[in-house]
Amino acid sequence: MSRILDGIDCPADVKKLTSGELKELASEIREEIISTVSLNGGHLAPSLGTVELTLALYYVFDFPTDKLIWDVGHQAYAHKIITDRRNRFHTLRKKNGISGFPRRDESPYDAFGVGHASTSISAALGMALARDMQGGSNEVVAVIGDGALTGGEAFEGLNNAGDMHTHMIVVLNDNEMSIDKNVGAMSEYLSRLRVTPGYHRAKKDIRGFLRGMPRIGEKMARTAVAIKDAARAAIVPGRLFEEFGFKYVGPLDGHNIDQMIDFFREVRNVDGPVLVHVHTKKGKGYKPAEKHPGKFHGIGKFDVATGECAKSTGAPKYTKVFSDALIELAKENRNIAAITAAMPSGTGLDAFRKVYPDRFFDVGIAEEHAVTLAAGMAAEGIHPVVALYSTFSQRAYDQLLHDVCLQNLPVTLCLDRAGLVGADGPTHHGVFDLSFLREMPNMTVMAPKDENELRGMLKLAISMNSPAAVRYPRGAAIGVAIEPGFSDIEIGKAEVLKEQTIADVAILSIGTMTQNVKRAAEILEEDGFKCSVVNLRFAKPIDIQAVCHFAKNSRLLVTCEENVLAGGVGSAVCEVLADRHIETQVLRFGVPDQFIEHGTRDELWEICGLLPEQIAECTKEYLLSMEETESGEGKA
Amino acid sequence: MSRILDGIDCPADVKKLTSGELKELASEIREEIISTVSLNGGHLAPSLGTVELTLALYYVFDFPTDKLIWDVGHQAYAHKIITDRRNRFHTLRKKNGISGFPRRDESPYDAFGVGHASTSISAALGMALARDMQGGSNEVVAVIGDGALTGGEAFEGLNNAGDMHTHMIVVLNDNEMSIDKNVGAMSEYLSRLRVTPGYHRAKKDIRGFLRGMPRIGEKMARTAVAIKDAARAAIVPGRLFEEFGFKYVGPLDGHNIDQMIDFFREVRNVDGPVLVHVHTKKGKGYKPAEKHPGKFHGIGKFDVATGECAKSTGAPKYTKVFSDALIELAKENRNIAAITAAMPSGTGLDAFRKVYPDRFFDVGIAEEHAVTLAAGMAAEGIHPVVALYSTFSQRAYDQLLHDVCLQNLPVTLCLDRAGLVGADGPTHHGVFDLSFLREMPNMTVMAPKDENELRGMLKLAISMNSPAAVRYPRGAAIGVAIEPGFSDIEIGKAEVLKEQTIADVAILSIGTMTQNVKRAAEILEEDGFKCSVVNLRFAKPIDIQAVCHFAKNSRLLVTCEENVLAGGVGSAVCEVLADRHIETQVLRFGVPDQFIEHGTRDELWEICGLLPEQIAECTKEYLLSMEETESGEGKA
Repeated sequence: MSRILDGIDCPADVKKLTSGELKELASEIREEIISTVSLNGGHLAPSLGTVELTLALYYVFDFPTDKLIWDVGHQAYAHKIITDRRNRFHTLRKKNGISGFPRRDESPYDAFGVGHASTSISAALGMALARDMQGGSNEVVAVIGDGALTGGEAFEGLNNAGDMHTHMIVVLNDNEMSIDKNVGAMSEYLSRLRVTPGYHRAKKDIRGFLRGMPRIGEKMARTAVAIKDAARAAIVPGRLFEEFGFKYVGPLDGHNIDQMIDFFREVRNVDGPVLVHVHTKKGKGYKPAEKHPGKFHGIGKFDVATGECAKSTGAPKYTKVFSDALIELAKENRNIAAITAAMPSGTGLDAFRKVYPDRFFDVGIAEEHAVTLAAGMAAEGIHPVVALYSTFSQRAYDQLLHDVCLQNLPVTLCLDRAGLVGADGPTHHGVFDLSFLREMPNMTVMAPKDENELRGMLKLAISMNSPAAVRYPRGAAIGVAIEPGFSDIEIGKAEVLKEQTIADVAILSIGTMTQNVKRAAEILEEDGFKCSVVNLRFAKPIDIQAVCHFAKNSRLLVTCEENVLAGGVGSAVCEVLADRHIETQVLRFGVPDQFIEHGTRDELWEICGLLPEQIAECTKEYLLSMEETESGEGKA
Repeated sequence: MSRILDGIDCPADVKKLTSGELKELASEIREEIISTVSLNGGHLAPSLGTVELTLALYYVFDFPTDKLIWDVGHQAYAHKIITDRRNRFHTLRKKNGISGFPRRDESPYDAFGVGHASTSISAALGMALARDMQGGSNEVVAVIGDGALTGGEAFEGLNNAGDMHTHMIVVLNDNEMSIDKNVGAMSEYLSRLRVTPGYHRAKKDIRGFLRGMPRIGEKMARTAVAIKDAARAAIVPGRLFEEFGFKYVGPLDGHNIDQMIDFFREVRNVDGPVLVHVHTKKGKGYKPAEKHPGKFHGIGKFDVATGECAKSTGAPKYTKVFSDALIELAKENRNIAAITAAMPSGTGLDAFRKVYPDRFFDVGIAEEHAVTLAAGMAAEGIHPVVALYSTFSQRAYDQLLHDVCLQNLPVTLCLDRAGLVGADGPTHHGVFDLSFLREMPNMTVMAPKDENELRGMLKLAISMNSPAAVRYPRGAAIGVAIEPGFSDIEIGKAEVLKEQTIADVAILSIGTMTQNVKRAAEILEEDGFKCSVVNLRFAKPIDIQAVCHFAKNSRLLVTCEENVLAGGVGSAVCEVLADRHIETQVLRFGVPDQFIEHGTRDELWEICGLLPEQIAECTKEYLLSMEETESGEGKA
């Protein structure tokens, strides 16, 4: 059976289709998405929700002359399929394959690279203003979810765009969800909008409304306007957005292509910024995803027929180890509270919520607020544990520094997905945290090598009267037996795993890399090199005594971390050596000064030279070169 | 004449005053503020605007049992004067004197430390939730300006608080200003509110309204509610805040103590979150400040009688050097746009606005948005120059990394007030930027030693096709004659200021510290030590060749920067030495791992050991100790 999809060689082909064909195409695209994601994993439910929206947009607008910016970008698979990437869609999220997110270097249709939430309105306004400065006339369309709308930057964008009066279109893709159920007053507001009479208003009425409506904020007798506006609010929903200077249209049925096409055509002619409220269903068209949109938000391989995921065998995820440990600690300590920014399941805190609903807080996609909220709690005697993905904690850099560290408040930061995250790629790698947290006075920064160490570090962090962060990677832990209770971890004290009185090399590692360097040391020992191995545990305070001791008793010091080399733990070791005036040879392993692509974790480790064999080989080569140098002259 | 103020030994004394006495006290406090700030400098206009508000709050609430959180905190001088700091108020902003901002370690009345905008609602909600968890019954009051309300975090806080339904009070201190005239759709909205009939409504009516009003979002037939609400909006202003789940009261006259006292008493009894809209005048009660609230926002010494500031003599400010240079460059290059986050005068961009109004964008207090907006512009062929204070750029860490650097977009970041800023203290020091920017792939990071270098660096940054940052300090530049045109600066190339073939010490500095190390080198030479002096210019890419060259040709390498030592330029030098396997002795000068207090710039340099004499002395001592060691044994 020939597919309409096979005839879509470029987006212009979409414009030639009939209403019936568009519906059929939507169905084919869904199949393509479901089958690919079932094999590669990916963001299924968000992308299933936007198929009709994507087609309606491409039917009306002339991308890439017009600009389309997807907020977060995890809902853009249909967009990718109909824009020059159908034949490569099976490589989704694979190394050298297409990215799971829009990227400017992947296609001219990807107008703006995304991954983190709430940036689209700002970027779209920037593009609209650039157009105005250059005398252009293209359309700029941002598509933002109701979840992403809770992020403060989206509000900053709305607030500015509503004031600039330039024409741009914001499509609010309202599916009542972030990754999990959406929260916040805005979400309540949208749910009220969806049931107002406006929802069923005929197209004709709205057309009249659009043409006849005076712009809020124009020079009119202001008292009169206020009363008139209020009266209009009885028939026109979306007043909140109008207060922000946007014209509001909707809510529309986000799975009715014809209706959306009609309205998108109309809003092109509206002056100033317009918000089109579209109501979609996350996971639309695939029953298991409709039923469990959270589970199918971002998912690994699954069976299309049943919706069952491939069972993960073996070790528990670090997420679960953290979650279990926190629940256990919260039993003893009633002052522990847990905060997540729209990631109750992703951070494992959904389990905590079940046990301690009154001590659990989901603040929505709002990392800045999450951290200052925690600081407020800590100032009043609560010990908040803020669980974020490492990459999203970047949003709260200033709050960590200004609200938590400067006041030296006891807030525990638990950073999941630290290090290279794999298929989600460069927007999601959590490889900066050791560097940026280490800069902050009063902060303690830890990374565990295994399950029990994570438990011990969490306990330590919560027992402290100052800020502390624990970072751990995505996915399965090492698989050691979990010991009852919590091991005692001493602040700033490294763990010596193996010591040679006089070593050829002492390898200092932290977190995930401890496993890798243990293996590397075995390889080196097989080759006859004597190795000491030290698990630093703390990026801050770094164990100065251990660094000095091993520097003095080894020909070579090796550092290894799953973090950028710039300013990371290896850098901290170099600082110690300099400040203690110890001259020695150092080799640093870590993430180089470039953005790392998507791929499997092993593939990415290989790119960074972090596989045990690479660490061993590179160290060995260097040790041999040192011998040559030493047998030659003295100093480089 | 005896003052009422002299009888205010603690806030409880305020509660004993009559209405007339409160007014008299307000007047005395104003005098106290004006005379102190005229001598010490400080945030005059914001603090003059909140005198009556402060007294009304203290009259009604029981601080510090109740919690009072000032957003930003630059409006809290009256609060400081009536809470145990009257006798020390003359030490305002002096070293070891009281801080210009609330600080938890200064007084129990300072419930939460502040300095950056938009944190108060988040912190207050955290305190309210901590109270609820612990079964407390205290009030929590946040006071936030209309300017700070444009920051995304404030919205995140509103959105969360409106959803949590716990009781807290947000006082919106609406003076129509950030530091300069406020911008944004929210600001437009507030200006409409101020002229609605509600403004003059009698107290009795509002009382009835408060008691009878159903909470938005309660279980009612939703369509019915929507229509009813809309009808109510005709008589009740503040609907926008009600959509966010807040009860709205106001606008009140923020200089009418009696009125505010009445309403603050009422809102204590309201369930859930309440927003009290108070209209104040920035600079109230001091004519020059009322007339020029921007100029008197934060000001140096001035003459009380005339309002004239002490004329700054000598060198122009770096702010002006930047501004002049940008205007000059923008003449040649029509694609340059300038963006500020509510700091047109502070960043010098007000001059740019005058010349190129269509290429100037003030986005309000919204650093995240400012940076992504710039990325959007850059994606479409504009070269945006984002001018921020270094300390506020911390708010945009993620946007710089995720939107600008990851996409390698040509955005120029100009960071004013980098380094130690003086009297504003730890919330405002810009001493982290070299570290955190250096971590970001694709970023170029520069700091000029003088006016001409700033001009050259700005030109270089704008000519580049990738992100670049230039950071420069607060206050007067060096005072060199400004050369016509722009000097050519080569990317990643250090400037050798003085070279000895075989030196005792090579001093590598960046930015402001270049002046200091030049003087330090003179002192060292007078003492017979041979010095090379290198101006690194670039924190990234660092001049590897220069570092290696001088490391090899000097007994000691010294680095010097006005930035934290952790991860800074000295750290980058150590990384180079390690990676190039050069064993040498290093001494690093910079800001130690602690928050630095307020004081004069020289006082703060002294704390950090950054005065030329200190650098010279410390270096000399170390050189002498090296000689002793060398004459003794070989390796430490």
